[in-house]
Amino acid sequence: MAFAHKGHDTIVFDNYFRRDAARALHANALLPNPDLKERAKIWNAVSDAPIRVEIGDCMDFKRLSKLVEELEPDCIIHYAEQPSAPYSMLGYEEASRTLHNNLGSTFNLIWAVKEHVPDCHIVKLGTMGEYGTPNIDIEEGWLDVKHNGRTHKFLYPRTPGSLYHTTKVMDTDLLWFYARIYGIRVTDLMQGPVYGLSTPETDMDARLLPNFHYDDVFGTVLNRFMVQAVAGIPLTVYGSGGQRKGFLNLLDTLQCVELAMNNPPEAGELRILNQFTEVFSVNELAELVYRVGNEMGLGVEIKAIENPRKESEDHYFNVKHSGLLELGLKPHLMSDEVLAEMIRRVAQYKDKIDPGQIMPRMSWRNA
Amino acid sequence: MAFAHKGHDTIVFDNYFRRDAARALHANALLPNPDLKERAKIWNAVSDAPIRVEIGDCMDFKRLSKLVEELEPDCIIHYAEQPSAPYSMLGYEEASRTLHNNLGSTFNLIWAVKEHVPDCHIVKLGTMGEYGTPNIDIEEGWLDVKHNGRTHKFLYPRTPGSLYHTTKVMDTDLLWFYARIYGIRVTDLMQGPVYGLSTPETDMDARLLPNFHYDDVFGTVLNRFMVQAVAGIPLTVYGSGGQRKGFLNLLDTLQCVELAMNNPPEAGELRILNQFTEVFSVNELAELVYRVGNEMGLGVEIKAIENPRKESEDHYFNVKHSGLLELGLKPHLMSDEVLAEMIRRVAQYKDKIDPGQIMPRMSWRNA
Repeated sequence: MAFAHKGHDTIVFDNYFRRDAARALHANALLPNPDLKERAKIWNAVSDAPIRVEIGDCMDFKRLSKLVEELEPDCIIHYAEQPSAPYSMLGYEEASRTLHNNLGSTFNLIWAVKEHVPDCHIVKLGTMGEYGTPNIDIEEGWLDVKHNGRTHKFLYPRTPGSLYHTTKVMDTDLLWFYARIYGIRVTDLMQGPVYGLSTPETDMDARLLPNFHYDDVFGTVLNRFMVQAVAGIPLTVYGSGGQRKGFLNLLDTLQCVELAMNNPPEAGELRILNQFTEVFSVNELAELVYRVGNEMGLGVEIKAIENPRKESEDHYFNVKHSGLLELGLKPHLMSDEVLAEMIRRVAQYKDKIDPGQIMPRMSWRNA
Repeated sequence: MAFAHKGHDTIVFDNYFRRDAARALHANALLPNPDLKERAKIWNAVSDAPIRVEIGDCMDFKRLSKLVEELEPDCIIHYAEQPSAPYSMLGYEEASRTLHNNLGSTFNLIWAVKEHVPDCHIVKLGTMGEYGTPNIDIEEGWLDVKHNGRTHKFLYPRTPGSLYHTTKVMDTDLLWFYARIYGIRVTDLMQGPVYGLSTPETDMDARLLPNFHYDDVFGTVLNRFMVQAVAGIPLTVYGSGGQRKGFLNLLDTLQCVELAMNNPPEAGELRILNQFTEVFSVNELAELVYRVGNEMGLGVEIKAIENPRKESEDHYFNVKHSGLLELGLKPHLMSDEVLAEMIRRVAQYKDKIDPGQIMPRMSWRNA
């Protein structure tokens, strides 16, 4: 909607993977969630920038390839991956679906582009979680290594913390290989967790609000905390809460993708941009929701629980993220008012909150 | 056969992937090539160490899992991958089969082990080609990186030169992830090209000789050169011939795998061993075959052709490979006599040589 609104001819191709997976796990999105065809109808009625929706699967190469051939896109924004780390750790079936979907969809997209629109720019959603938490500075995609008196620039070595994140490391490898061999052009956006419940476009109709999950599988930590604050449930901090990540506002995600799209890399280039604006630890987020929620009279409490993940809870974290700022990103930073506004939105849907979705159902230790 | 001969209870599970793919490409092995069931029958008649053969596909998780549950192996040697770089570059279908087979089979194996024999040692065949040709020393799997005053040990960053090699980088990532999360134990043998036409076991019956391909897709450079020398065709050097690789004798491959098997790593460890004994450039191999072949009166010539691959033809190459020597490897090095003996073996099958299989049919430049 944001890109259509700005004048880009926009087509969406989707197979409802997450919607179906969330339904199978009884994880219901908090905000109204009409399907894509319905949302397109609503959007096309309230805006003057219509969006075409095609329902189909990137794993179906003939279908995807034909669509790319027909449309001749200048840019393809590749979000067609199973996006949840906990989902990928549930068991064999979910892990297998994650591996095959994420690599198969990326592979098919590469070949559709290579065969029909070799100059097309692929903007792929990566994740900051690919890097893991090494004990040195995290650079923006590449690392100059000095070793025994010689130097070489490598793709920054990655240590992902879930099977999902491992598939994202692999799809970067796949895109980079085909970039250097066949000259496709790729931007890999290493995104941190996104927060935000509205944009100028979603506010045109309440049925256009973004997807909002707060459950243990598809939710994010800040969504969970806001829902817990509203529902009177203590904020569940996993382990000691020292885990630090780079976050960004939904408005900035949209800016970043458009900046990447409007400034494509060279043919044969894999450009990597670290996409976040601010770093918070889990404890800092919990304290922020605690303070702002209590100022709103919500009676928020914090409670540490055993960490279902295997991850460092106290780690070095110094990450470069200058590329998108250089392209022109104007960050929307977190503030008490931004958080309070999100909590007020969540509170409007308080009756729909299902506390049974919140606690972790799987563990990295005993899948 | 070598492992059975040494007293290991040995079961082979195979789906004839390479055999079928080679047949589809009209790439015929030079030496007699009865199928596995027939070979097992021949072997079981001439030896006192019978081998059981099961024909099936590692992509069939139920079948593989049931077999692992039934057998409770101490060690699984994982060779179940599409092994050819040129095959993986032929086109969409071959690339797709390579990606899905190599990752799917590794993934299924991991889960079968995790569910039924968590202490089982997986010995996976990797390849030296995963490293590519960086401008610094290649270490044995891991690299201590110093950066801005801090240090971190990373999996050695890899820059593979074909889709096949890219899938091998990915399966290392997959095994490493599950090693650190679920505690499986893995040895990754980063093998260089193997040469050799016989072992004590294969020499017990001419129908037990190893697989010998010399074609553009499944052959190796030294096999091609020996066949060209015997057939009176100039040795085809790809490009300027400065490409350097680590090679080893078939006898040493078998030693290495058994040394790994008899000395398993700890639970949760990914142990990486660089498996080769000597480095040769393509030109050095061509000159060796030229000299020895001409001493045998074969009238050998050398002819450079355009390189179908995208690779460095003049690169730094200093690779550590002490791990297997420390485990006890006693190398069988290349010599004029070793080469002459191989050429004499190839010459026995001179009438079966098909010159139409030798020249490259695909290019990295225009798949």
